Amino acid sequence: MQVFDTPLVQRVLIMGLGLMGGSLALALKRAGFAKELLAHGHRESSLALGVANGVIDRYELNLDTALEAVDIVVIATPTLVAEQQLLALLEKLPNDNMPVITDVASVKGNLARAVQKVCGEPPVNLVLGHPIAGSEQSGVAAARADLFNHHRVILTPFENSCADAVERVTKMWECCGASVVQMSVAQHDAVLAGTSHLPHMLAYALVDMLAASTAATDVFRFAAGGFRDFTRIASSDPVMWRDIAIANREALLDGLDEFEGHLKQLRQAVDRGDGAALIDMFARAKTARDAFASDLAKRSNSTVE
Amino acid sequence: MQVFDTPLVQRVLIMGLGLMGGSLALALKRAGFAKELLAHGHRESSLALGVANGVIDRYELNLDTALEAVDIVVIATPTLVAEQQLLALLEKLPNDNMPVITDVASVKGNLARAVQKVCGEPPVNLVLGHPIAGSEQSGVAAARADLFNHHRVILTPFENSCADAVERVTKMWECCGASVVQMSVAQHDAVLAGTSHLPHMLAYALVDMLAASTAATDVFRFAAGGFRDFTRIASSDPVMWRDIAIANREALLDGLDEFEGHLKQLRQAVDRGDGAALIDMFARAKTARDAFASDLAKRSNSTVE
Repeated sequence: MQVFDTPLVQRVLIMGLGLMGGSLALALKRAGFAKELLAHGHRESSLALGVANGVIDRYELNLDTALEAVDIVVIATPTLVAEQQLLALLEKLPNDNMPVITDVASVKGNLARAVQKVCGEPPVNLVLGHPIAGSEQSGVAAARADLFNHHRVILTPFENSCADAVERVTKMWECCGASVVQMSVAQHDAVLAGTSHLPHMLAYALVDMLAASTAATDVFRFAAGGFRDFTRIASSDPVMWRDIAIANREALLDGLDEFEGHLKQLRQAVDRGDGAALIDMFARAKTARDAFASDLAKRSNSTVE
Repeated sequence: MQVFDTPLVQRVLIMGLGLMGGSLALALKRAGFAKELLAHGHRESSLALGVANGVIDRYELNLDTALEAVDIVVIATPTLVAEQQLLALLEKLPNDNMPVITDVASVKGNLARAVQKVCGEPPVNLVLGHPIAGSEQSGVAAARADLFNHHRVILTPFENSCADAVERVTKMWECCGASVVQMSVAQHDAVLAGTSHLPHMLAYALVDMLAASTAATDVFRFAAGGFRDFTRIASSDPVMWRDIAIANREALLDGLDEFEGHLKQLRQAVDRGDGAALIDMFARAKTARDAFASDLAKRSNSTVE
């Protein structure tokens, strides 16, 4: 993890000081990445807490003032709010002297489409990103300098993205202890639909189904540790996941359809008592899952989300 | 947890000395429940290890000899093997002087149907049971005296079951630290289909689907902690779960159909961008899951399965 003797940039502006924005600020401060860490948001109490806790250097409630002499803007608000904020930024900022703009939202397609609709070609300094990290907690009070340590950050630069801008955002995440990879917007959204968004939908649907059944009390009384782990993600914030489901609609629908096909095959095997087909599917899944778990354990000993 | 000054029964026979049978033996020994703990099985190395580790007092490879002067027989073999062993026992044992017979299998309907097919009315001393406990480990070497501590055991007595037999099996589990509840065979299988068997099918189907996709490597590279927990049960033993899927076919098919209906509703809400419907479903699920997790934490601080 790099620590800078002299700051790499003068000023980073974080828009939305919650768990993600706050943790980024703490990690950047630890690394000496910027001379000044500034935050903008609509909830002054969070911003004031950020200053009091030493998460940021200062805050600005007025966006125009906040944007003055900024090198990097990080949009760290929820998925659908990020879309509005990005458009607001692009309207305010001159295309020829734009700071580097990036974000931390869970879906990239909705942002890319919104930008292309408004600007045609995306600004060269816009580099969308997604750190694969989080916590069940939220808010700036839960911010941790090590939240991104040993985690991956996916950047989805556009074809016309400026190499310097991509490098700046890459360095920003690397000095937080993250490893940065690049892929296309479509690939990002498909990968995340499969490994994150679809599992959340399945967990929500199962728990809602069991809760709706008349024997609900009994059902949960006899659930245990396997069920607890399988459904942990059904305790996630409903508003955040509504936004993600709406923002990543296309890839999520594809994932849901593919899953329905697989589940139908499994149902047919159960229906005809086809033990060989069941063993095949279960054994393939176990092999893949064991390999994933062992890889994840190697990647990091820290808690990951 | 009760500890007996004088043994409640003379001899308990455990058929199949693996994690479950071995842990039961250790807990019964700790409680002083029986004068002698005997095991029968086809793998002599496991039985000898059981004696060497002090899990059982002795073992018998010959079933007829093993059954002599036994008070309680506990079938602790996998689901489908348990069915065969139960029928073998009923053939050997005289109906008028039968020991209490119970088991630990995950499905009760296949056993009940097999018995009713062979005997018509089930023997009065047969009390089927299912301790809701386990571990990712298996084998007698992994046996632990506290495996059932703070866990639930479901007994599914028949209408003609002898009250003394039910009481004996209840006391046996209570002295292991478990709390015992009774329900019908059909209710047991429906509850377990919802909270255990269906989640396993969903986890297996999702991991198998992702592993089959061409981007498999990428997909798992970007999966993290939420995915790890959601898919932990897809690392379970494929043979065990094939057997459970086959043994609990009817209830599992019902559960799969009901789940498909719920998932379809969710898909439609995503498709039409119906944020209100999504919030409703996610919030109901979160409420139910939070309540379950808090109840589970209250039930026990020990690791549960």
